Amino acid sequence: MTYCLAIKVDKGLVFASDSRTNAGVDYVTTYSKMHRFIWPGEMMCVLLTSGNLATSQAVVNAVNHDLEDPDAKFSLRMVDHLHEAAHYIGELSKTEQEQHRDALKKSGSNVEASFILGGQIAGREPEIYMIYPQGNYISASPETPFLQIGEAKYGKPILDRIISAETSLEDAARCALVSLDSTMRSNISVGPPLELAIYTNDSLGTPRHQTLAMTSPLYRQLQKNWNEGLQRAFKRLPRFDWE
Amino acid sequence: MTYCLAIKVDKGLVFASDSRTNAGVDYVTTYSKMHRFIWPGEMMCVLLTSGNLATSQAVVNAVNHDLEDPDAKFSLRMVDHLHEAAHYIGELSKTEQEQHRDALKKSGSNVEASFILGGQIAGREPEIYMIYPQGNYISASPETPFLQIGEAKYGKPILDRIISAETSLEDAARCALVSLDSTMRSNISVGPPLELAIYTNDSLGTPRHQTLAMTSPLYRQLQKNWNEGLQRAFKRLPRFDWE
Repeated sequence: MTYCLAIKVDKGLVFASDSRTNAGVDYVTTYSKMHRFIWPGEMMCVLLTSGNLATSQAVVNAVNHDLEDPDAKFSLRMVDHLHEAAHYIGELSKTEQEQHRDALKKSGSNVEASFILGGQIAGREPEIYMIYPQGNYISASPETPFLQIGEAKYGKPILDRIISAETSLEDAARCALVSLDSTMRSNISVGPPLELAIYTNDSLGTPRHQTLAMTSPLYRQLQKNWNEGLQRAFKRLPRFDWE
Repeated sequence: MTYCLAIKVDKGLVFASDSRTNAGVDYVTTYSKMHRFIWPGEMMCVLLTSGNLATSQAVVNAVNHDLEDPDAKFSLRMVDHLHEAAHYIGELSKTEQEQHRDALKKSGSNVEASFILGGQIAGREPEIYMIYPQGNYISASPETPFLQIGEAKYGKPILDRIISAETSLEDAARCALVSLDSTMRSNISVGPPLELAIYTNDSLGTPRHQTLAMTSPLYRQLQKNWNEGLQRAFKRLPRFDWE
């Protein structure tokens, strides 16, 4: 399984992902699920992947192949609006799934993959999109400022409580880490290292990127402070009338 | 949808449930999902239901019918161990599902229901069981002190962080309310009023029972304190090195 999310706040975008993949419980591996495509001053986008690893790798390979091929009919570099990039990823994903759907169905496996694509093109607003396995896609909005793929439920309550369009980029990043941490504690199919990318609007350059292992001082401090803060919050809950 | 949970701590048992049921999004209704069966000094048990409402109602009706029927081959009153009661509920559920499975399948509906059954029989240890739609069941343990049915993921992280066998009954009840509150905020198919039953080991009588509407002073105070506590905990998270 996987858990990835993207947050769009007034100041910019935050992307976060875990790195665990598994085929059954006896083949657990580590892969980055965050792919960055940057043309400084022109375009910056981040692609997060979840679902069938072969499908998502094939999509990333196809994106890179189109970028390297001077005769490619279409590539990420050619998009005018980010929704065209979302459409392109959706089409690549559908094509890849079609090739292997029947064979995987016979073995009881799922060929589907989901994606989050976010970024900014020079002169345009920054955006984030979630691309469904069927190839269609939705964007975030001021009222729905985050999108999630994979094992999304465990980490949603803290996002619902903290994130709004006004949240600072750093607070959004911290909230993404707490959301990932809660998910990892409750579901062993989501695991470290965590990747974080923080993009400031209109910078059109490489986002701040961090890879956090369980032993990273920042991550350990965050886990410790959050646990202590929750215990403290819990102690302040009202008593029942018989207590 | 539904969210119900039961917690077994050293001092006793806590049961909690929401009250929302829906057939699609345009037929949303309110039903209690908590059913109590009490023979003071002899046996106390609580049944929580989730899944298809017709199935779960039919199971509760069958339980009550067997209790009223002097010729019934079996009833809740006859069990020596609580696992026999779990087995009985599982069998009733399977029988009911079999009757309607084909018809519901044709209309694309799901006949399945899940249950939590917990309580104590005089001279025995208190126990909680989760009964799967297939009729089999598992119990809680000191290492896994809570069981959930329905929309369980949103509310699991806080249980994972707070609940252990040593948790007080009242803290376990507060944690159950926070878990339900987080779930209701993230999923509109889980809704008020909330029901809470708190059973002290060996009391073998009626558990403390509360029905909490959104406007209940206790529930409002709990929501307020928890939100403030989370915001405070969030503010104490470590800064990034560039901040």
